[in-house]
Order: sequence, then structure tokens, then C-alpha cells
Amino acid sequence: MLYLTIDILGTIAFAISGVLVAMEKRLDLFGVFIIAFVTAIGGGTLRDLLIGNTPVGWMQDLTYVITIFISVVFAIIFVNKLKYLRKSLFLFDTIGIGLYTMVGVEKGLEAELLPVMCIFLGTMTACFGGVIRDILCNEIPVIFRKEIYATACILGALSYFLMIQFPVKDEYAYIAGILVVILLRLLAVRFKISLPNIYKKQVQ
Amino acid sequence: MLYLTIDILGTIAFAISGVLVAMEKRLDLFGVFIIAFVTAIGGGTLRDLLIGNTPVGWMQDLTYVITIFISVVFAIIFVNKLKYLRKSLFLFDTIGIGLYTMVGVEKGLEAELLPVMCIFLGTMTACFGGVIRDILCNEIPVIFRKEIYATACILGALSYFLMIQFPVKDEYAYIAGILVVILLRLLAVRFKISLPNIYKKQVQ
Amino acid sequence: MLYLTIDILGTIAFAISGVLVAMEKRLDLFGVFIIAFVTAIGGGTLRDLLIGNTPVGWMQDLTYVITIFISVVFAIIFVNKLKYLRKSLFLFDTIGIGLYTMVGVEKGLEAELLPVMCIFLGTMTACFGGVIRDILCNEIPVIFRKEIYATACILGALSYFLMIQFPVKDEYAYIAGILVVILLRLLAVRFKISLPNIYKKQVQ
Repeated sequence: MLYLTIDILGTIAFAISGVLVAMEKRLDLFGVFIIAFVTAIGGGTLRDLLIGNTPVGWMQDLTYVITIFISVVFAIIFVNKLKYLRKSLFLFDTIGIGLYTMVGVEKGLEAELLPVMCIFLGTMTACFGGVIRDILCNEIPVIFRKEIYATACILGALSYFLMIQFPVKDEYAYIAGILVVILLRLLAVRFKISLPNIYKKQVQ
Repeated sequence: MLYLTIDILGTIAFAISGVLVAMEKRLDLFGVFIIAFVTAIGGGTLRDLLIGNTPVGWMQDLTYVITIFISVVFAIIFVNKLKYLRKSLFLFDTIGIGLYTMVGVEKGLEAELLPVMCIFLGTMTACFGGVIRDILCNEIPVIFRKEIYATACILGALSYFLMIQFPVKDEYAYIAGILVVILLRLLAVRFKISLPNIYKKQVQ
Repeated sequence: MLYLTIDILGTIAFAISGVLVAMEKRLDLFGVFIIAFVTAIGGGTLRDLLIGNTPVGWMQDLTYVITIFISVVFAIIFVNKLKYLRKSLFLFDTIGIGLYTMVGVEKGLEAELLPVMCIFLGTMTACFGGVIRDILCNEIPVIFRKEIYATACILGALSYFLMIQFPVKDEYAYIAGILVVILLRLLAVRFKISLPNIYKKQVQ
């Protein structure tokens, strides 16, 4: 039940983030829907394909399509009232990657993959939808911008595997994993933390 | 038999549309082949992957590869005689999406998916080859241009599901679905019909 | 044993080629890792998805992830000492496509596909990683540049199928296939061989 709720919340967060990017680019109604849809299901689709879970999740169950549809309608209605589009986008995207990272980890565990592969899978589930969204909207993919992004997903998933080594209830470790991702991303952007430089210093 | 014929005709239409775009971009011989191939099999490959129908269709049967090969050779020979390249491209692409929409719907039904998923699958089968073709050739994907495109596929697939509610032979509803897609796209472009505007009016 | 060794060597070659492109583009540490990873596993992942070999190869076995990790660390350390970055990239990429072409052919044979499909599969395994690498790094994909590239893979794979018609040990034919790809690509670049022109001559 918890896992399904988290999955649906992630779908909502990413669908809204898709609407925000698509409307900033002033795409038409169909374009907004397609971007929202692809953002919301992109990561999960890649994950399901890689582990051979077919037909992919959102095809077996109307829940996802209906959730996305309702989220998009709401987002379109309310977007014109949003004063801080960029900030809202950042927030929904950040919540989305937190939720989806752990959804991906969970699916990896169900497929009996090694922890390191589950971490990969969680990170891909979280990041891939946003990457497709940005490529289709002609933005630089979030994953390649200066800030910590996928690194937050990796560390969040890692913290889950560390926690379940101890006598912690799985649900708590699961939710903690989500919070670690969200918190790391918020802190990284707030304090402008980025990865270390690997190049020789140059006079520019 | 009907279904296979439609699939092959769609393959021919999309292979030719691929050749036309690639030659307009003056790609070399290999580039033309690869674009034609990807355009023709792209949509079906995505569809087969999503429903877990692997090895994907065109790998299990030489028919598709041979069909594409012959279509490309013919198209290359005749393209220099075509006066209206853009118009021919539009025609072959439109026929292609009509045929492939119903091929996708049919495969969805075989996989026992819900009607709404079959409509998605048909639309993806129809649109994805053209989208890859346009991305690889550095054109704006057809699906994001102003005109009705994927919407025609959705409505065509929908009309099929409406028709089979009535005592209509499946073959007739199938062919009617194809014609609805093609007709809607032709009319939309002819009369410059596009989707409604969702943005507040602005002085520009 | 031979087949696994070849697969690992290909992984190393492509991981290094990914590092070289990513560092030339001055991506950050995470960017370098992701490009190296995607370059190394991209072709194999596409191949495994198309034939339905899931969970895809690199997820079932830590070997690939560890190999890529070590290759990237070494490449980053040594890249600043490389005087001829472009030449090194060309070399590693060429070795990579030679090795991966035959890995792909082998997997196609295991899936009992027709020889022509095995040749396709080998070519895709070899070329797809490099194509993703170039798209993500905003380079023109190698496959669309003027030189012989995928054509070398096709001819190498073809020469394997010709050789095994004769009483040749499979291992020898396998290695010969690799060498044909590498040699053809080296010769094509050295002597500036490209595919024949299919366009009418024009005064430019």
C-alpha cells in the first residue's frame, strides 16, 4: 500500500513538472499532455524494460493514465496563477526524483537484483523522465547541469541499503531514503554544492 | 492476412518517407538506408518492447527487411523525378500513420490490453518512427508541429473501438479506423485546423 | 571464455572512448562517469532489449560495472598525459566497434536468429553506444559522418558468416571478424574512403 501510494505521488509530481516545462515553452494542448505523460512514465518504462517487466507497469493498470490526466488538467488550470514557475518546477521535480528513486529500488529488489543494480535502477527511474522532458523541450537535461542531481538519488538509495543493515522497519528506511534524496537536492541547490573539478586549472 | 498486408503497406510508406527526408538532407547512401529503416521499424519496435513481444517483430521474419530494402532502392531511383518532394513526403507519412495506428491497436488487443492502452499503443506505433526520423535528421518532430497529427491517430483508433460496439465486421471497422486517421490528417492540414489555445491572450 | 574476454575488452575500450569525449567537452565528474557508462553498455542494452534477454546483461553480473568503474578512473588519471586525444579516441572507438560487432553476432546466434538479423544485431551493438555518447555530448553521431563506420561492422560480421561456411574453427572466424571491422575502419579513414554518391551532380 505504501509503495503504491509513493508511486502515484511520484507520478503526480512528475506530470506537473512536465506541464510546467511544456507551458513555459508554450507548447499546444497535445504537446503539454505528451510531455507530462512522458515525464511521468519515462523513468518507470525504462526500468521495466531493463528488468523485463512487460507489458510495462502503466499499461497493465488504468491508475497511472487517469492520475496523469487529472494532474495535467489541474496543473493547466492553476499554472496561470503560479507566480514562481521556475521554483514550483524545481520543487515538483525534486519531490518526483525522491519518490521515484525508492520506487525503482523496490522494483529492483523484487527482481532480485544486487543492491548496486537496485541503486542504478532507482537513479534511472528518477532521472530518465526528466531527461526526456528536457530533451523534448530543448532544455539542457537537468542531469547534466552543474548541481547535484543524480548524485542525490544515488546517495538516497545507498542510505536505504545502509539502514536496512540495522534493525529498522523497512517502511521507515524506505521513507528515509526518499527524504535523503529530496534534502540533498534542496541543500545542494541552496548552498550551490557541486561535484569536484577533475580538470587541471587553466587561465581562462 | 489483412493485418499482415496492412503492416507491410505501412512499412513501405514509412520507408519511403524516410528516404525522402534523408535525401532532402543529402545524407549518404548508408544514412538514407538507416533513416528509412528506423522510420519503418521504429514505431513497431517501441510497441513490441513495451508489451514484451520479443525478439521484436521484424527480427523474426525477413519480410520486413526485404520490404524496406526494395522500397528504399525504388525510392532512391525515383526521387530525382519527384517534383513535389514535400507533398510526397506528407502523403506517404500520412498513409503510414493511418496503417500503423491500426496495426498497433491490433497488437494491443492480442496482448489483451485495455482499449485505452490499445489506443496509446496504436498512436505510438504510428508516430514514433516519424519522430526518430525527424530527430535524426534534425527536423522539428512532426508530432510537435502545429497541425493535428497524433490526435488523428487517437481519434482513428477510438472510432475503431466505437464501431466494434455495433454489429460491424471487424475487418470493416479496422479499415474504417485507418481511413479516419488519414482523412482527419488530410483535412486538418488542408483547412489548417489545430488544437485550441490554452494560454492567456497576450499582446506580443 | 573467449567470448567473455572479448566482451570485457569491448567494455573497456568504449568506457575509455566515453571518458575522452566527455572530458573534451569538460563535463563534470558525474557527467564523465555517465557518458562512459552509457557508451560502454548502450549497444549491449539495446541488443538485449530487442531479443528479449532481460534483465539486460550488465544487470545480472557485477563484472561490467566494476570494469567500467576501473577503466574510467584510469582514463581520467591518464587523459591529461595524452597528447593526441582525438587519435586515441579514434583508436579506442575502432577497437570497441570491432569487438562489440562480434559480441552482438554471437548473442544473435544464441537467440537462434537468421544470419542477416545477427549482422544487424552486431552492427547495432557496436554502433549504438557511440551514437548515444555523441548525441549526449552534442557531437554529430559517428555513424552519420562521411567515413565508413557501420559499413565496416556489417562487412566484418558478414565475413564471419562467410568463413564459417568453410571448415574453419569458430574461434578463428570470430577473431577474424573482429579484425576485418578494425582493419576496414582504419583503412577507410587512412585513405579517406567513403560511400558512393547517390545525388545528381550539381554546380555548387
